[in-house]
Amino acid sequence: MTLYLNLAELLGARIEQGLYRPGQRLPSVRSLSLEHGVSLSTVQQAYRMLEDNGLVAPRPKSGYFVTDHRSLPALPAISRPAQRPVDISQWEQVLELVRSTPQADVIQLGRGMPDVNSPTLKPLLRSLAQISRRQDMPGLYYDNIHGNLALREQIARLMLDSGCRVSPADLVVTTGCHEALSTSIRAVCETGDIVAVDSPSFHGAMQTLKGLGMKALEIPTDPITGISLEALELALEQWPIKLIQITPSCNNPMGYIMPEARKKALLTLAQRYDVAILEDDVYGDLAYTYPRPRTVKSFDEDGRVLLCSSFSKTLAPGLRIGWVAPGRYLERVLHMKYISTGSTSAQPQLAIADFIEAGHYHPHVRRMRSQYQRGREQMIDWVTRYFPPGTRASRPQGGFMLWVELPESFDTLRLNRALLEQGVQIAVGSIFSASGKYRHCLRMNYAARPTPQIEAAVRKVGETALRLLVEEHSPA
Amino acid sequence: MTLYLNLAELLGARIEQGLYRPGQRLPSVRSLSLEHGVSLSTVQQAYRMLEDNGLVAPRPKSGYFVTDHRSLPALPAISRPAQRPVDISQWEQVLELVRSTPQADVIQLGRGMPDVNSPTLKPLLRSLAQISRRQDMPGLYYDNIHGNLALREQIARLMLDSGCRVSPADLVVTTGCHEALSTSIRAVCETGDIVAVDSPSFHGAMQTLKGLGMKALEIPTDPITGISLEALELALEQWPIKLIQITPSCNNPMGYIMPEARKKALLTLAQRYDVAILEDDVYGDLAYTYPRPRTVKSFDEDGRVLLCSSFSKTLAPGLRIGWVAPGRYLERVLHMKYISTGSTSAQPQLAIADFIEAGHYHPHVRRMRSQYQRGREQMIDWVTRYFPPGTRASRPQGGFMLWVELPESFDTLRLNRALLEQGVQIAVGSIFSASGKYRHCLRMNYAARPTPQIEAAVRKVGETALRLLVEEHSPA
Ligand SMILES: Cc1ncc(COP(=O)(O)O)c(C=O)c1O
Ligand SMILES: Cc1ncc(COP(=O)(O)O)c(C=O)c1O
Repeated sequence: MTLYLNLAELLGARIEQGLYRPGQRLPSVRSLSLEHGVSLSTVQQAYRMLEDNGLVAPRPKSGYFVTDHRSLPALPAISRPAQRPVDISQWEQVLELVRSTPQADVIQLGRGMPDVNSPTLKPLLRSLAQISRRQDMPGLYYDNIHGNLALREQIARLMLDSGCRVSPADLVVTTGCHEALSTSIRAVCETGDIVAVDSPSFHGAMQTLKGLGMKALEIPTDPITGISLEALELALEQWPIKLIQITPSCNNPMGYIMPEARKKALLTLAQRYDVAILEDDVYGDLAYTYPRPRTVKSFDEDGRVLLCSSFSKTLAPGLRIGWVAPGRYLERVLHMKYISTGSTSAQPQLAIADFIEAGHYHPHVRRMRSQYQRGREQMIDWVTRYFPPGTRASRPQGGFMLWVELPESFDTLRLNRALLEQGVQIAVGSIFSASGKYRHCLRMNYAARPTPQIEAAVRKVGETALRLLVEEHSPA
Repeated sequence: MTLYLNLAELLGARIEQGLYRPGQRLPSVRSLSLEHGVSLSTVQQAYRMLEDNGLVAPRPKSGYFVTDHRSLPALPAISRPAQRPVDISQWEQVLELVRSTPQADVIQLGRGMPDVNSPTLKPLLRSLAQISRRQDMPGLYYDNIHGNLALREQIARLMLDSGCRVSPADLVVTTGCHEALSTSIRAVCETGDIVAVDSPSFHGAMQTLKGLGMKALEIPTDPITGISLEALELALEQWPIKLIQITPSCNNPMGYIMPEARKKALLTLAQRYDVAILEDDVYGDLAYTYPRPRTVKSFDEDGRVLLCSSFSKTLAPGLRIGWVAPGRYLERVLHMKYISTGSTSAQPQLAIADFIEAGHYHPHVRRMRSQYQRGREQMIDWVTRYFPPGTRASRPQGGFMLWVELPESFDTLRLNRALLEQGVQIAVGSIFSASGKYRHCLRMNYAARPTPQIEAAVRKVGETALRLLVEEHSPA
C-alpha cells in the first residue's frame, strides 16, 4: 500500500513544482513501472489517486495528462502558526457555532453534519425502534463501563479495514468522539502540559485542550501531506511535549490524507522522543480511495497511540456513539470515562451493533463516500465560479468539508455576520487555530446532495466575500 | 414548609435523646399547636413525617406513640472521617462494581439501579420507538449545546416542586448526572483545589474529584440531619475550600433528608466563606414525604449553587439524561459540557420531554415512591431478621438504598468476595469514602419488588457476615 502512495506523492510534487506543466502528457504506466521498480498496478493506483486529487486526467488511449490547473483554485498555503505553546482562545466563536439549533430558514454550511437521508441508513432507525419495544428493555439499564460487548466486537472488526488488530477488551465505547478525545487527553496529560497539534485543527479538540488547561503548540501543516514532520521534530527538541494530537486521515478541516510513509515516520519520531499520539480517525472510513488509508495506530507496537473515533460522520452524530482504542492508557481512560459520563447509553450501541452485524455498514459508507466525492467536485466548481479571484481551496481526499482561503487581510468573522442576515452560516477559520489564526479562511460542508438552494447559499458566500473585499480596498 | 420540618426535627431529637421513651404517648396535636404557635395541620405534617421515619406510630383515637425501637436496628454512628484534605483512593473497588454487566445469575444488591418494570414507564418506551420512526429523524442530528428546549422547559417546570424558579436558559442538559457533576466541578475548581464533601458520599462524585486531581475534605455526617455544619465551619476556617459537594435530599448512601433549616444555614455558611455549593439532587423527587423537600438551590440568591440531577433514578439510567442548573457558572459549565461530549443525544431528550408533557411523570414517581417506601420496610425487616446482632442500619427518607453498619473490625471487601461465589453482590462501604473508610459498612438496593430470591440473597449477606464475624473472633 505504501508504494503507490509514495509514487503518487512524488509525481504530485513534480507537478506542483512545475516539472510537468498543465496539459502536458505524463510518463506512461510502463515506463514508470520500470523506472521505480514497481508493478504496473502500483503505478495505476498512483495515477488513480492523482486523478482523485484533480492533478491528472486520463485521455482515452493516450495516457495521463496534467489537468488544466487554471480551472481549479490553487491549494491553500502551508500554514505558519506561531512556534511556541499558547493558551487557547476562540471559545466565543465556537460557542456561537455549537449553540445554534438547526433552523429551517438558515443553510448551515458551517457544521460538521453528514447526510443522514440515505435509504441505506433506514435499517438503523428500524433497529432503534425495535430495541425500544423489546420486553427486556436493555435501553433502560446501566451498561458496563467498557461499553456493550457486541458493539465492541463489531468495532474491532471494522478496524481491520485500517490495518488495526485490536480485541474488544482493548476498546472503550464513549459518548461520541468528543468524549473519546477528552478522556484520552486527560489520561495522558496534566494541567499545563504542552500538546503539539496539526494546524489548522478541529475546534472541538482545540477547545478540549483549552478546557483542560493544556497549552497548544501548533505545528505547520501541508495541505497535501499533513503535519510537517520537520517542524514537529524541531518542536520536540525544544519543548517538553507530552502528546501529539493529529487527524491524519481525511483531516478536518483540510481534507488531506497523510501518506503512509509519513505516518510511519511520525510514529518513529514519537518513539524517539517518547511521547504519546492521539489519532483522531473520525473521518477515516470516508476516504475516497479504496482501501481506506491505514491508521498510525495500525503501525503502533508499544501502545503509545490512542485512536479516537465515532459513528458521527459515517452514520449519524445524534447517536453520540464513539470509541477509543487507548493502548497502554486503557486503565486511565476507563477512569476518565467513568467520571465523565458513567456508562454509555445502551440503546444506540445495540442498534449500531445490529446494523454492522447485518452487513449494512459497508454498503452505506460506500454510498456516502461516492456522494461526498461528487459533492466535492460540485463545491469546488461553485467556489471556482462564485468566489473572488485568487481564492484558494483544499482538495479533500475524504469526508465532506472544503477549506477555503481568501486574501490574508480578509476577515471571515465579518463575512459570517453579513451572511447570517442572508440565512447562510459558515465556519470561520479562526476557530481552527489555538491562537485565532486563519481569520481569512472558512470551512464549508458539502455533505448534502446539491440543490439550487445550496448553490444559492454558496454563491451568497462568494459574492458577499467579494463585496467585502472590494469595500476593504476602496477609499472610505 | 419549614415549620413542620423544624417541629419534626425537634420531636425526633427528643425521642432520640430518650425524653420520650418507646411505647410512651406523645403530646396531642392541639397542645403542640399551642406550645409552638403553629397550625394544627403543621403539627399533623410533622407527626406524619416522624411516622414515615418509623419514630412514631398513631393509635386510633388515642394519638401518637413512640414506636418500639427495640424492633428496629439502631442508626449508624455519626461518621468521623479524617479532618484533612486527602487524595482519593478506592478506584479499583469502584471499577469492580461498574465493570460488571447485569447477569441473570447474580443478584446485584450493590448497584444504584431503580425498578424500571413499572407499567407507568411504558409511555416512555412508546415515545422512544415513535421518535425512531419520525420522518424528520430528529434523533440523528447534533442537538444544540444547551440541550433540547422542550425538555429544558419541562425540567424547569419540575423544579418548581422543589421550590426552584429557573428558566430553560438557566439549564444545561447533560449525559446523566455524572456529566452534570464533572462539568460542574471543573467549572468551579482547578487541579489541587480542596472540595468539602459529606461523608459517606456517592462513589462517582468521589472518583470525579480524584480524576480531576482535587483533594477531598470529608466532613462528619449525621445519619438523620446530614453534613455537620459545625465541622464544616471549622473546616472552612482552616482550609482554602473551593466547593462544598453534598447530596442533601435522600442522600446516597445514607438516605437522610437534611432539614430545611440546616439547608439554609449551609447556604449562609457558603456565603460567608464565599464558596460554591454543588448540590446533587438525583434522588430528591423520590422523597417519601409530600411535598418533596426543597433544594438548597431554591434558597440561593447569588447563583453560587450548582444543582445537578438526572432522570436515572426517577425514570431509567440507560437513557443517560441529566441536567445542571449552574447559576453564575453557566458559561463555564457550557464550555466543560462542550469538551466533555459535545451535544447530548437528542432521542432520549425528546422522549422524556413528551413523557413529562403528557403528564406521565408525577404518577410514575408517586408510584415508585410508595413502592420504595414499602421496600425500605421490607429490607429493614430482613436486616433485623438475618443480620448479626448489633448491626446498625439507616432509615432512608427517600430513594432505594439501605446503609448497613457492621462491627468496626468487619471487612466488607472479604464479605463481597465470599458473596460473589454465592451469586450475590453488594456495594462495599469503602468506596463511599475518599480515604477508604467505612470498610465495615455496605449498601444494599431495595428498588425491586420483594421476591423470595431477593430475600434469599439478603439472607445470604446477613448469614455470611455472621459466619465471617464468628471466624474472626474464634482462635485460628
Ligand atoms: C476531527 C473531528 N473529531 C471529532 C469530532 C467530534 O465527533 P463526535 O460528534 O462524535 O463527538 C468531529 C466533529 O465535528 C471532528 O470533526
Ligand atoms: C448521588 C448520585 N449522584 C449521581 C449519580 C449518577 O447518576 P447518573 O446515572 O445520572 O449519571 C448517582 C448514581 O448512582 C448517585 O447516586
